[in-house]
Amino acid sequence: MNSRLHASEARHRARLLATASLLGLGLAFSGPAARAERGEKPVSWEDIANDDKSTSDVLSYGLGLHANRYSTLDKINVDNVGKMKAKWAFSFGDERQRGQEGQALVHDGVIYVTGSYSRLFALDAKTGKRLWAYSHRLAEDIRPCCDVVNRGAAIYGDKIYMGTLDAGIVALNRKTGKVAWQKKFEDHTAGYTMTGAPAIIKDQKTGRVMLIHGSSGDEFGVVGRLYARDPDTGEEIWMRPLVEGHMGRLNGQDSTPTGDPKAPSWPNNPDGTKRESWNHGGGAPWQTATFDVKTNTIVIGTGNPAPWNYHYRSGPNGDWKPYDSLFTSGQIYIEPSTGEPVGFFQHTPNDAWDFSGNNSVLLFDLEKNGKTTRAAAHADRNGFFFITDLDTMTARDGRISKQAGGALAIYPFVRDISWASGWDVARGRPNELSGRPPAPVEGEKQGKPVQVTPNFLGGTNWMPMSYNPNTKLFYIPSNDWTEEYWTENLTYKKGAAYLGQGFRIKRKFEDHVGALRALDPATGKIVWESLEQLPLWAGTLTTKGNLVFTGTSDGFVKAFDARNGKELWKFQTGSGVVSIPITWEEDGKQYLGISSGYGGAVPLWGGDMADMTKQVSQGGSFWVFELSPDMASK
Amino acid sequence: MNSRLHASEARHRARLLATASLLGLGLAFSGPAARAERGEKPVSWEDIANDDKSTSDVLSYGLGLHANRYSTLDKINVDNVGKMKAKWAFSFGDERQRGQEGQALVHDGVIYVTGSYSRLFALDAKTGKRLWAYSHRLAEDIRPCCDVVNRGAAIYGDKIYMGTLDAGIVALNRKTGKVAWQKKFEDHTAGYTMTGAPAIIKDQKTGRVMLIHGSSGDEFGVVGRLYARDPDTGEEIWMRPLVEGHMGRLNGQDSTPTGDPKAPSWPNNPDGTKRESWNHGGGAPWQTATFDVKTNTIVIGTGNPAPWNYHYRSGPNGDWKPYDSLFTSGQIYIEPSTGEPVGFFQHTPNDAWDFSGNNSVLLFDLEKNGKTTRAAAHADRNGFFFITDLDTMTARDGRISKQAGGALAIYPFVRDISWASGWDVARGRPNELSGRPPAPVEGEKQGKPVQVTPNFLGGTNWMPMSYNPNTKLFYIPSNDWTEEYWTENLTYKKGAAYLGQGFRIKRKFEDHVGALRALDPATGKIVWESLEQLPLWAGTLTTKGNLVFTGTSDGFVKAFDARNGKELWKFQTGSGVVSIPITWEEDGKQYLGISSGYGGAVPLWGGDMADMTKQVSQGGSFWVFELSPDMASK
Repeated sequence: MNSRLHASEARHRARLLATASLLGLGLAFSGPAARAERGEKPVSWEDIANDDKSTSDVLSYGLGLHANRYSTLDKINVDNVGKMKAKWAFSFGDERQRGQEGQALVHDGVIYVTGSYSRLFALDAKTGKRLWAYSHRLAEDIRPCCDVVNRGAAIYGDKIYMGTLDAGIVALNRKTGKVAWQKKFEDHTAGYTMTGAPAIIKDQKTGRVMLIHGSSGDEFGVVGRLYARDPDTGEEIWMRPLVEGHMGRLNGQDSTPTGDPKAPSWPNNPDGTKRESWNHGGGAPWQTATFDVKTNTIVIGTGNPAPWNYHYRSGPNGDWKPYDSLFTSGQIYIEPSTGEPVGFFQHTPNDAWDFSGNNSVLLFDLEKNGKTTRAAAHADRNGFFFITDLDTMTARDGRISKQAGGALAIYPFVRDISWASGWDVARGRPNELSGRPPAPVEGEKQGKPVQVTPNFLGGTNWMPMSYNPNTKLFYIPSNDWTEEYWTENLTYKKGAAYLGQGFRIKRKFEDHVGALRALDPATGKIVWESLEQLPLWAGTLTTKGNLVFTGTSDGFVKAFDARNGKELWKFQTGSGVVSIPITWEEDGKQYLGISSGYGGAVPLWGGDMADMTKQVSQGGSFWVFELSPDMASK
Repeated sequence: MNSRLHASEARHRARLLATASLLGLGLAFSGPAARAERGEKPVSWEDIANDDKSTSDVLSYGLGLHANRYSTLDKINVDNVGKMKAKWAFSFGDERQRGQEGQALVHDGVIYVTGSYSRLFALDAKTGKRLWAYSHRLAEDIRPCCDVVNRGAAIYGDKIYMGTLDAGIVALNRKTGKVAWQKKFEDHTAGYTMTGAPAIIKDQKTGRVMLIHGSSGDEFGVVGRLYARDPDTGEEIWMRPLVEGHMGRLNGQDSTPTGDPKAPSWPNNPDGTKRESWNHGGGAPWQTATFDVKTNTIVIGTGNPAPWNYHYRSGPNGDWKPYDSLFTSGQIYIEPSTGEPVGFFQHTPNDAWDFSGNNSVLLFDLEKNGKTTRAAAHADRNGFFFITDLDTMTARDGRISKQAGGALAIYPFVRDISWASGWDVARGRPNELSGRPPAPVEGEKQGKPVQVTPNFLGGTNWMPMSYNPNTKLFYIPSNDWTEEYWTENLTYKKGAAYLGQGFRIKRKFEDHVGALRALDPATGKIVWESLEQLPLWAGTLTTKGNLVFTGTSDGFVKAFDARNGKELWKFQTGSGVVSIPITWEEDGKQYLGISSGYGGAVPLWGGDMADMTKQVSQGGSFWVFELSPDMASK
């Protein structure tokens, strides 16, 4: 701010104040220098590979490559969590609020947390003092479907990486917040964005460390893509499209089409060309990859097919059964050296309900009947919990689709699923009920509505579950809700919503929408549940202290007994909590960190649920909790 | 939010998200109904008159009609304050942040707190749950000089009152947040605004309860006005302009001019008419009135004369001495029945430095040499602390100007005041040094700069001090800083800044800008001071627990030992704290409440200090602290 005041300047400033629109400047403002000893240490691959074991760092989205969101810390535990207190808070500022969905990272005494509108803050973990802030300069015409959220950063070496809403990815110097490199991976006016956290993996074959990130944008009819980049330069190593038959890229050259080049899972026109939807088929991998070091495989969920209206992805007379719309709404396994798919399991064949398949895929050891199996777990928006066989899914056996034989168990985790009665696990096919919305009859603009449970916001959504190897339970932030759902006619127009569906989200039960559920993967049993009036939209964290942490849309951070679901502690942060908790220790003391700030898809698209959450203030802050020193000594 | 999604709607929403500008809707959103037992009790005049004694309520700006900001609560005290913890926080939301300067009120278990952009929130005092929120619909062309702040509400009966930035005042139903009445008192495009908290007083002569409020806008050349209204209907009872010779109003009719109708304190043109500046002379009473029940007198500070450039308020050749620019930059005493001025003491005769005189005027008993005198205390931006004789100032003796004989003592409270060496207390005139900035020489646009200490942001500013009758000390949030200051040529243009001055605010000392100072009114001695790197911009609160509470621009809420200034406790709220703490008790337990959210004049006009505070995030939240239950029992 300069300081000479002239009449015209004063007037201009008064007007500035009146309109109070502050656009992001794309600049890092450095605060006073960080203490030299904090944030200095570079992050190695070994640090990341050990993230599930180390307690002083949080270096990956998921607290480990397997994304279990489990910490071995137990200094805060079921016995003392009731006395946890706020240590400090940090405001993201800028007159920008909306959904704060980020999971923070912690390294060498510095917290790196992303905020809405593609912002990234480095904070002294002890004091909350801002070390630097980066606010990405965003174009006016970005097209985030479901709020201007960012879910987190990746960290490696001396850099930190964040996706941006303008379909880009930026690497910042971790110590200064200055841009090291930035890449725009696609045209944001077509609807491409990036909201998910990137991931760092290491190709075990070549020893090359890679930055893996996807795209978002299925609601605008993009072709979803997964990218591998050189973390030092940002140069693309490979790109893998997730609509069958689209061409991949490796080292700047065409590589292979994804799956069968003829894309038999997408229908043709009578003249033998692909139907238009294939050009805009979705499948965007907008969440974060997990990584199986043993088999050297990237695992990530893929987005819904586009358009939502499945009639546009079917043959004549709506016959959809031969057309699974691969590789959408499933979990895909990728060879890091080349970006080649090696396995795929589809959660919703020819997804007609925008169930998508993005939610985190956790890698864990399934113990059942005295036998331990390497497995992957995924709770889907479609209401089913998928346990797949990790060795089968990662097998380089020439089969990409592992639908038959890939699944170990598939359980419902929400109530009254309407679209399928269950699964033929061996064949990997759902027992679908007559839940598909009919096309509009001749002369009508809308089809007859059907009732769908869960609705498209899902039995769960982006907010990641966690797995505790001690309790052997998964902790799923789930929702019980329904919708009216009808088809609409549609033509593709670049940058416009590409849905072909209308909907009205509705309450299903009087006593709750949200339900934090503990699921036993050996039996599929819901061991306990804790109900919430408002939708749950925050991820969970579980610890050796037998705790589950999460946040609620009415502003609380909460701790539960992981064994029985008893609520042991809560704190009101003043805005809805729709982010992901983390925990770490420094100087022998355990801390809990979480962002507060309501937003995301529910208040935008949630119908009756959006109305319910009008009472929730927006916000934007990061909170750290601790057992107070004056407690710990008692 | 409706719920039918069509392509065009989705696109529209995506764009809405992209631009993310949410204008205030001027609507109250009701949350779930408050518990019936909270917020039900009407507020009586007796409740307000006893606000300094009652501990369960905070019903006035200043915790009592005398604005001492002293609480008789001592459950939180010097011995246990170190263990105070955050109980809950509330986010003001709306993607609106900037300066949160409000003092909250508490009544019957409900907290009423104002936010930036003329917003008002009712919160359950125990849980922070929002009961309702009101966001005033603001025009695009409002002209707040110094951020979009609001400093607080007034409460009476079943209504709560708030000034609005569009030069209005609104009364809301306290239980629902619905508008009961609203009045626009002047044209906001001329620069009129309202940022101060209104006050409720009771005319002891007629028994009529009145709502007293002023205007802001001196930087745009308004004529400052004080208003009395019927709190039930909003109808104006009287209006008192604060530029000498302007006509007042009573019951809708012209009443009397303020002071001498010829306004000899403002110069004439050669033709005998007033110089143009008299039409735009400032004096706006933008802070909150105190009330002396004994003499039935309203007391309030008046704003700077306009323009700042004193040459426009002087005679030929810059001779200013006969022209005091009454009734600006002083404290005025008003008869409530008629709005007639009965006394005035000017803190800066013909103010050439925008020192203004608005800061709170506290009424207290001065004990000195064994004698108790009813007195008024005011710490001025000009660096001097004024103790005036309340009985003299309120005497209906026909003299409005009580410059001679009105003051009991005048002390400096900041370092190195440059514009005056001290005061001739008996005559009520400063011993001015040659600190006035010269007019531009012929052909130049700017005059030669002078160095002024304190600068126009002042030795203190709007942030109210407090007085503790036990320690017998005033706690002043003060700043040591300086400025370069030069005149500029000027013509009045409606809605444009009317200053005729340029400035650059500068640091004065390496080790601090802010200084929380304890001043002994009997001696003028600074008994202790606590220095801050950043400017102090928050008010203070003092308690029988021997504590002083305040906030700092770097985000802390702090507690000090009132006797010696020892810092006993602090908490980092994540944004700068520039508001006013309050305390109350419920069910036998004491709470501390304060808003966090950086903004106000410093980041806008503070020159080098604005640069310093760029590291501070904006915010908008209300915080409540307590001694935790698990502590209190130990």
